[in-house]
Amino acid sequence: MSNQELEELRSKLDEINLKLLELLNERAEIAQLIGHLKTKQGMVKFDPVREREMLNELVKHNRGPFDDNTVRHLFKQIFKASLELQEENKNKQLLVSRKRHPEDTIVMVGDTPVGKEPIMIAGPCSVESEEQVNTVAKVLVDQGVKLIRGGAFKPRTSPYDFQGLGIEGLKILRRVADRYGLKVVSEIVNPADIEMATEYVDVIQIGARNMQNFELLKAAGQVKTPVLLKRGLAATIEELLFAAEYIVSRGNSQVILVERGIRTYEKWTRNTLDILAVPILKQESHLPVLVDISHSAGRKDIAIPIAKAALAAGADGIMVEVHPDPSVALSDANQQLNLEEFTNLMSALQLPVTSSTVK
Amino acid sequence: MSNQELEELRSKLDEINLKLLELLNERAEIAQLIGHLKTKQGMVKFDPVREREMLNELVKHNRGPFDDNTVRHLFKQIFKASLELQEENKNKQLLVSRKRHPEDTIVMVGDTPVGKEPIMIAGPCSVESEEQVNTVAKVLVDQGVKLIRGGAFKPRTSPYDFQGLGIEGLKILRRVADRYGLKVVSEIVNPADIEMATEYVDVIQIGARNMQNFELLKAAGQVKTPVLLKRGLAATIEELLFAAEYIVSRGNSQVILVERGIRTYEKWTRNTLDILAVPILKQESHLPVLVDISHSAGRKDIAIPIAKAALAAGADGIMVEVHPDPSVALSDANQQLNLEEFTNLMSALQLPVTSSTVK
Amino acid sequence: MSNQELEELRSKLDEINLKLLELLNERAEIAQLIGHLKTKQGMVKFDPVREREMLNELVKHNRGPFDDNTVRHLFKQIFKASLELQEENKNKQLLVSRKRHPEDTIVMVGDTPVGKEPIMIAGPCSVESEEQVNTVAKVLVDQGVKLIRGGAFKPRTSPYDFQGLGIEGLKILRRVADRYGLKVVSEIVNPADIEMATEYVDVIQIGARNMQNFELLKAAGQVKTPVLLKRGLAATIEELLFAAEYIVSRGNSQVILVERGIRTYEKWTRNTLDILAVPILKQESHLPVLVDISHSAGRKDIAIPIAKAALAAGADGIMVEVHPDPSVALSDANQQLNLEEFTNLMSALQLPVTSSTVK
Amino acid sequence: MSNQELEELRSKLDEINLKLLELLNERAEIAQLIGHLKTKQGMVKFDPVREREMLNELVKHNRGPFDDNTVRHLFKQIFKASLELQEENKNKQLLVSRKRHPEDTIVMVGDTPVGKEPIMIAGPCSVESEEQVNTVAKVLVDQGVKLIRGGAFKPRTSPYDFQGLGIEGLKILRRVADRYGLKVVSEIVNPADIEMATEYVDVIQIGARNMQNFELLKAAGQVKTPVLLKRGLAATIEELLFAAEYIVSRGNSQVILVERGIRTYEKWTRNTLDILAVPILKQESHLPVLVDISHSAGRKDIAIPIAKAALAAGADGIMVEVHPDPSVALSDANQQLNLEEFTNLMSALQLPVTSSTVK
Repeated sequence: MSNQELEELRSKLDEINLKLLELLNERAEIAQLIGHLKTKQGMVKFDPVREREMLNELVKHNRGPFDDNTVRHLFKQIFKASLELQEENKNKQLLVSRKRHPEDTIVMVGDTPVGKEPIMIAGPCSVESEEQVNTVAKVLVDQGVKLIRGGAFKPRTSPYDFQGLGIEGLKILRRVADRYGLKVVSEIVNPADIEMATEYVDVIQIGARNMQNFELLKAAGQVKTPVLLKRGLAATIEELLFAAEYIVSRGNSQVILVERGIRTYEKWTRNTLDILAVPILKQESHLPVLVDISHSAGRKDIAIPIAKAALAAGADGIMVEVHPDPSVALSDANQQLNLEEFTNLMSALQLPVTSSTVK
Repeated sequence: MSNQELEELRSKLDEINLKLLELLNERAEIAQLIGHLKTKQGMVKFDPVREREMLNELVKHNRGPFDDNTVRHLFKQIFKASLELQEENKNKQLLVSRKRHPEDTIVMVGDTPVGKEPIMIAGPCSVESEEQVNTVAKVLVDQGVKLIRGGAFKPRTSPYDFQGLGIEGLKILRRVADRYGLKVVSEIVNPADIEMATEYVDVIQIGARNMQNFELLKAAGQVKTPVLLKRGLAATIEELLFAAEYIVSRGNSQVILVERGIRTYEKWTRNTLDILAVPILKQESHLPVLVDISHSAGRKDIAIPIAKAALAAGADGIMVEVHPDPSVALSDANQQLNLEEFTNLMSALQLPVTSSTVK
Repeated sequence: MSNQELEELRSKLDEINLKLLELLNERAEIAQLIGHLKTKQGMVKFDPVREREMLNELVKHNRGPFDDNTVRHLFKQIFKASLELQEENKNKQLLVSRKRHPEDTIVMVGDTPVGKEPIMIAGPCSVESEEQVNTVAKVLVDQGVKLIRGGAFKPRTSPYDFQGLGIEGLKILRRVADRYGLKVVSEIVNPADIEMATEYVDVIQIGARNMQNFELLKAAGQVKTPVLLKRGLAATIEELLFAAEYIVSRGNSQVILVERGIRTYEKWTRNTLDILAVPILKQESHLPVLVDISHSAGRKDIAIPIAKAALAAGADGIMVEVHPDPSVALSDANQQLNLEEFTNLMSALQLPVTSSTVK
Repeated sequence: MSNQELEELRSKLDEINLKLLELLNERAEIAQLIGHLKTKQGMVKFDPVREREMLNELVKHNRGPFDDNTVRHLFKQIFKASLELQEENKNKQLLVSRKRHPEDTIVMVGDTPVGKEPIMIAGPCSVESEEQVNTVAKVLVDQGVKLIRGGAFKPRTSPYDFQGLGIEGLKILRRVADRYGLKVVSEIVNPADIEMATEYVDVIQIGARNMQNFELLKAAGQVKTPVLLKRGLAATIEELLFAAEYIVSRGNSQVILVERGIRTYEKWTRNTLDILAVPILKQESHLPVLVDISHSAGRKDIAIPIAKAALAAGADGIMVEVHPDPSVALSDANQQLNLEEFTNLMSALQLPVTSSTVK
């Protein structure tokens, strides 16, 4: 008997569900009309005062059994859904989102496509001398690597640490790269330097400490040079995507994302490589995703398994620091590979020869 | 003209809002009836299969503009609110919650009320000898402290570190405490030892590493001895409350919560004291809240300002490690106060003399 | 001229270096002799009082230019090195360390070797019914999987969540496993249950929340059944190794380590999978290392790339939650694969057929 | 007998200790001479190649019982101590360090001393209109507050969020502040704007996201306007001090440090206020230290206990967000106090009336 009772109550619920659905969609339509009106009049769509008034009105009429907080909660969800409808979904709308742009973005650096076959970006942490860069460049060419990285402007924790050679470093990189047919990736740290940098570098790197330096992001969005954007050291995946959106929304769609480890309590590694971020970024965004294996681990003894894991997770390439003699490097001595270790890494990975290589 | 249009649309919205409210509350009533029926029949209230069927049905009838995911989301919120109504709100229902029990719980340890005026719990990290405990106890009595702490069962990261004197340690604590009219706080780590421990200790401590050792919590819930429960080293505030609920729901309502720092990336302190947890715990729960200043900071040079901050934030007392000669301690040498430092701390805090003291 | 001066000073330094080296080794020899004497007499080797006396004596004689703190620091390093020599190096000495035991440990579970070719452990989060386990088991057998997992004792944050079927759950697992020739992996949470559990399970799982439940570790060390030990949710890699040492040092060398993600600020995943831990654990220890892809990500949409990354990083296998109908599961509904998703994962991974399978 | 043997060995150790001490100090003197020589010749003091050669030489001559790694470790410690002596201790040398400058720095903002008696800085998260700022300013004046804060340049996670009124916002702040005799604190985000900002603001705020925007720090170091520097959201205490050093080393010694919470896994607060950082910063540095109670907690219900805790921990003041109607604020609606809540906070804190107020 009580089962019958249960069934009756359930079919009443089902009826109400459908009525609710109808009303919700009716409400959504009106909200859309309001949104269109507001767009015409240049008004912002989110109106918290009006929302509060509606909530007050609802609470005033609430006779239960839902308590006022539950009513407020449910209607806030409804308001939010309606607003998202007006805005055609904030996430859907992000230019960096795969919902907006389902195909992979391929960033061309010279004739090397980033976002297609896995690539390698390698070079010294800091540019120290032309000889040093030259030595590394030769090995890169031998290994079929097309992109050289090197720091000329170094963001350093202490003002007394080596701050890089500055523009002189960029010039060294350019000369060596041209000599060997390589492309240059180098970090820029001042919005005022972005314009200048485009003369010397093929890819502007924005480092982890500057991931939310929005002025720098905006400046990078106003040039046409590809941008390699590293995840901040305690940035969420979502914040990385928003940072990329700053660049893309200013007009520069050539952005490469880099997972480089996040700060955690673990002490045996410099950072914790967030490998889960790789497939999530690939799924949420159409931009290429690289993994920096030097800054994440901060130790080179596990370079090979980590690089393999990154590629297996779907990364579009690897960044690694290589130095002719890491023990005398002016920065990051412990994490840079020497030339032999780099050659071993390349053998272990067996990256595909890119189409541009076979030309 | 368009303002008029806007106003019209808005009053339509308002109407729909009220209709929605009515339907939602009607739905909630039916859900309550179903809940009562289920209770009678001993059925679980949450029925995911039925939920899925309802969602499928709704999506089948959805004609937009809300997309199917939004419909699913909104109805899940509605289902959840209805379920919570059936369960009379999970959080409200927690026995440790202030919503359930608005008055402060005062845990009586002997004649010392914990949860009223700020108290001090002090003593060595590990019980090493009767002489050691005796030396500390004398100073505690001089300072008006009523509760002595000391570790007999020590959970240590390495199996080769000093593991404590075990039951012999408890006996030493008991003898010394009885000699000086003190009450004993000591950690128990095995559910099988809880019963035995009640013979020797006045407060059973459950340490950070065991905060989610649910068997230990259940065992502690089955005795009448007060329990001092430390927050796990990466536990959320909510998880601490749920851990306390394990104890209280088994019948032991005498629980004292302890914030003792959480694990973060910061290297200059052993842990990061989550001072925000203190007022939040006091607000969410009726249980007393202490702050362990030794394990949080892991350094004693800032003991005084931290203890002051904890009390200012609303803590019901302080826990601190005191050792006659910290540099030779068998554990935690760096963070234990010596007797003079402890005396200085007591002078700095000027804790009120509890009513029991003046008897 | 000053270059010559520099050279002279440098050769003086070189001389002193060699004298220091000689003295340090002479000191080390004497320290070793003292260590032998102490061993004979059953004395503990570390004597903090003596150390303090030596430091006081040194500081008394210090005439600079090193300040007293530097002298203390340098001699503490020397004392520590001497002590480690006496103890033959704490790390070298860990039974779980590869320095102590260079060959891989292969844990035999029935005739399945864990630590050789990559394996798969799969099954429902919670055992809910014999029918449920049976359905999963059939698919496992089809896919060549040898080990079934399922929770009978569930450590749950809230005391009001489903706590598992307990011993009844173990019996279901055993019956189904025997029917299909599978081996059972299941979590035990109470030291008092370990003995009983060996009747039903082939591998005792110790969960993340219990990684530092040292009483449970000790109990697991006293049986012969293999133990699968998960990393705690904020445990360091070193702490995981020490936890394993608790088990191995009690006599049970059959331990399998599991990386299952650590707690960080990132919100788009349940935990952050610490992929770097995999090659580090393989390097530091001889024990097999698995990756739990369900608890780390907490979302199943990235199961395939994550499993691939884990194997590429050197993991000896994967653990994954599989449920015939995840949406109605009594726990962890969002992260369990359904049967089809699991079949797809197996196809994507193409695990080698183990020797035992071809028999 | 063996005790006698032990005593003999120990006195041999004591002799060697003293010889080692003598040699170490002799070595330190020579290292100092080398340092002086290098200073004269403008050479960098740290010479990793020379260090490696010395280590190689030592290992070549090592005959044990210390193994080569231990020898390397011990001598690296010795080299490091010698180098620190040459550099007169890196930390001692930091301009922001209390070792270098033992007296408290008092930053004068108008006639309000920051770093003496506790002060309050309050105002809206974003400047929205002159009316809004005016309303807040009136309440500040009533409450004896001297410094108003307000965001004109807002660093926002999404490019589509309200980015602030820019220079127009600064002008509003200036006009209102002048009207009420207040001083203005406002965030600047672009190095190119620092110069301009000094016309409108009395204190340049550098926000958490820009704590390691070294170009911005350098620019702020080149003006005379006081700088309020917030700790980065995952910055260590040490990194905050180094960031301050960037400013001070460029010539601007008027820096105020702000603890504003760090990013952790805890979900019930926006950030975790690192209260331990307050006494540590006060101890390590001579700069004033404030606590931002709005951004740390991200919830205003615990504003009073948190502000009290901050002052008890030794903070030189509090920063808080106040808005005439937080629910309609364009940013951070949940964490801003309304005017009544702010008045209650001021009553609860009973800040001392600063000397400047009584004039």
